[in-house]
Amino acid sequence: PVDRYGQVEPAAVAEAIGPHTTMAVIGYANNEVGTIQPVAEIGAICRERGIRLYVDATQAAAALPLDVDALQVDLLGISAHKIEGPKGVGALFVRQGTNVIPQQVGGSQERQRRAGTENVAGAVGLAAALRLVRDDPAAMATESDRQRVLRDGLLSRLQTIGDGQLTGHPTARLPNSVSWVFEGVEGGDLVAALDLDGLAVSTGSACTSGSAEPSHVLAAMGIPPERIRGSLRITLGRMTTASETEQAADLVTAAVARIRAAAAVPRETSAAPAGA
Amino acid sequence: PVDRYGQVEPAAVAEAIGPHTTMAVIGYANNEVGTIQPVAEIGAICRERGIRLYVDATQAAAALPLDVDALQVDLLGISAHKIEGPKGVGALFVRQGTNVIPQQVGGSQERQRRAGTENVAGAVGLAAALRLVRDDPAAMATESDRQRVLRDGLLSRLQTIGDGQLTGHPTARLPNSVSWVFEGVEGGDLVAALDLDGLAVSTGSACTSGSAEPSHVLAAMGIPPERIRGSLRITLGRMTTASETEQAADLVTAAVARIRAAAAVPRETSAAPAGA
Repeated sequence: PVDRYGQVEPAAVAEAIGPHTTMAVIGYANNEVGTIQPVAEIGAICRERGIRLYVDATQAAAALPLDVDALQVDLLGISAHKIEGPKGVGALFVRQGTNVIPQQVGGSQERQRRAGTENVAGAVGLAAALRLVRDDPAAMATESDRQRVLRDGLLSRLQTIGDGQLTGHPTARLPNSVSWVFEGVEGGDLVAALDLDGLAVSTGSACTSGSAEPSHVLAAMGIPPERIRGSLRITLGRMTTASETEQAADLVTAAVARIRAAAAVPRETSAAPAGA
Repeated sequence: PVDRYGQVEPAAVAEAIGPHTTMAVIGYANNEVGTIQPVAEIGAICRERGIRLYVDATQAAAALPLDVDALQVDLLGISAHKIEGPKGVGALFVRQGTNVIPQQVGGSQERQRRAGTENVAGAVGLAAALRLVRDDPAAMATESDRQRVLRDGLLSRLQTIGDGQLTGHPTARLPNSVSWVFEGVEGGDLVAALDLDGLAVSTGSACTSGSAEPSHVLAAMGIPPERIRGSLRITLGRMTTASETEQAADLVTAAVARIRAAAAVPRETSAAPAGA
């Protein structure tokens, strides 16, 4: 279970571990709402109980410490495209002594863990992106602070729209993450309207785009279904400026107002053709 | 089984199909020796017997027809990097009515067949490469003819070196494929020597590089083990020129001679230090 901010309680992990549990898996920060999990505490529990811990650090790699020893993780994965590197490439940390079953077999590449000709350009791109965002911890902290200020400005503006709420943790969240739900708005309509305005946002996870199911993440946090439908996710990046987040706030405010106004006008019911 | 040229006899496929066979898998052209398989005949047999046929067309995509109806295949795969596109991306043809088990699960991307954020740049690169090499069938045939002439010139030059042989089919082979075995030469030494000379070649398949095992492809064709060790694979491309293949022939000739000469000189046995 998670709390209303989407956070996992370490005690709940300890309780969930049974005699046949061999592994725990957790996202370092949630992809939809940006909530950061207490990975080090969970890692300590797993270590003590002798089970492996896999941490999906995809969302976290641009902003959070990835010290695999401090976090006490056995496996940790990242994706290049979440840190402004190329799509189609990632990295997996595997602690010595952890056996992994290959996902792709047939060739001896990558120590028989992933068959197929290596994407060299992608790997170089991932390394370059890591260097850019993480090589200098002070610069990374400064950039996180910069994004957090812009992000909080945007959140304050969304608050003024009314009939909605922040989703995810108010403070233990990624500095670049804005997630919100608006009542009386279809997330898909909002994304489409903002796309026409030139603002690239999403209504949930890319992994479930095209799916009509409501977000399982928002549902697990106890967000009521009528609000889940109106979810919006905005992500800031290294190149996002203050004027852009102000513009974004204006555009979202206007789009939500338009959509709500359109929904408030009762549509004419189509009359049956005369004489039919 | 394959014949001495590495070709599969369609009758052998028919014979191998048993009551529980559901699928046949074949490489359109072999990656080590360039031998082209009689895919259409094999496809007809599989169709008649009601089993699926997967064709790995990775090596063939730059030069051979990929008409999935004429070949009667149900599944056909290609890789971009074999047609001068980017590494890390490929395409899979799946005939309607063929159910495939996803290799990567967890997201709904690519119609739930391959989870994970799509490598858009890679996909665009693959499309561009396909257009470049295949859009104009006449140009593709002309380019294949051009490479075949250069290739045959290189093969003739290798023939003059002596104590070696072509591997794979003499005529039913990819136009860009040179594969040879030299007696009294270690393939790894030859590749290393040619690398220093600026010639990029290989001694087998990238999928087994680093492996000490002799090539299973050459073994299946009945090449004697002492010759398998001296295998060389040279691949031509759209940018390979006649002067480059002439240079390549000179470099291989010289390198083989050097390696054989070094092996022929008995090394001095290291004498025990005087007085020891």
